[in-house]
Amino acid sequence: MPSLAQQIAFIKEVDKIKNIFRKNLNFSNERFENDAEHSWHLCIMAVTLAEYANEPVDLLRVIKMLLIHDVVEIDVGDVMIYKKTDADSEAEKEAAHRIFGMLPPGQKQEYLDLWLEFEELNTPDACYARSIDRLEPMLQNLHYECRIWNHHGVTYDQIVSVTGKIDEGSHVLWDYALSILDRLREEGKIS
Amino acid sequence: MPSLAQQIAFIKEVDKIKNIFRKNLNFSNERFENDAEHSWHLCIMAVTLAEYANEPVDLLRVIKMLLIHDVVEIDVGDVMIYKKTDADSEAEKEAAHRIFGMLPPGQKQEYLDLWLEFEELNTPDACYARSIDRLEPMLQNLHYECRIWNHHGVTYDQIVSVTGKIDEGSHVLWDYALSILDRLREEGKIS
Repeated sequence: MPSLAQQIAFIKEVDKIKNIFRKNLNFSNERFENDAEHSWHLCIMAVTLAEYANEPVDLLRVIKMLLIHDVVEIDVGDVMIYKKTDADSEAEKEAAHRIFGMLPPGQKQEYLDLWLEFEELNTPDACYARSIDRLEPMLQNLHYECRIWNHHGVTYDQIVSVTGKIDEGSHVLWDYALSILDRLREEGKIS
Repeated sequence: MPSLAQQIAFIKEVDKIKNIFRKNLNFSNERFENDAEHSWHLCIMAVTLAEYANEPVDLLRVIKMLLIHDVVEIDVGDVMIYKKTDADSEAEKEAAHRIFGMLPPGQKQEYLDLWLEFEELNTPDACYARSIDRLEPMLQNLHYECRIWNHHGVTYDQIVSVTGKIDEGSHVLWDYALSILDRLREEGKIS
């Protein structure tokens, strides 16, 4: 069964995201988390917080996007959102073609389309998925009172500019996160 | 907004599964994987292999089960399936009530019901979800030519008895995994 063999090869290949570490700390033990842990956390967040999406979303499509969104980092590594270039985005596209290209044609196209939709943010599903992808590291950073942001020299204005994408997917979640950020700024934890 | 505060507390609590390590090795770098990595891998497998489910399944429900199925291990730890007792199962039930009990009532009930359905295997969704939960460690063990099974003194008959649950969710995936296991037995890698 050639399709199944291709799918199993893909399943083994994507295992590699367990070795790609992000720039953000877990909530529970102050170590950097990897892309697999991050992707799981986004999915359980997306399910748990779905009522706060600005528009009705197809939660299964949202979850598919979140499950696969970081597999491209197998080839290009994790780039902090505050430092991403056009060349990084181009390399990610090549990686998407290589990795999803391991699958049978129909599934390759489905995953590639979902990955692109998530990148291009043209649909309510993608906007909600992206809001969750921005919310998790923001909550982690807020949990540690902006320590990692400060370490990388990221400012309040940059944070609002980048994490403001949350607002496009969920006003409620953005208002919640922003209120904590504002409090920490008042306390002098971020400038 | 009290519901949101409860949900965020739950999201931070379940982070702890990133610190619960399983008895199985990753495909890619021979280290033990944790429950968050495992749960992500099951979800992407469930989506990728859905065509092989014995009966039509509601993939979103399957994924919800897989996302939450191991959070009880925050309280009880990871017990190898070959060594699980009734007392372990009872402790897991208590953990489910504590952890899902952090959520607003409706969501608590939904997650508790999904968790129980996954445990009790009375529906096609639960049977498919469980087959994926058995398939991932089996594929990992086969990938390393039964090394971990041998380390724990697990025999071919025990493997077939426990991982045979795969067959209840997917004959195709069971036949695939069993054929590799049989080849390894013929090669003397497992007895």
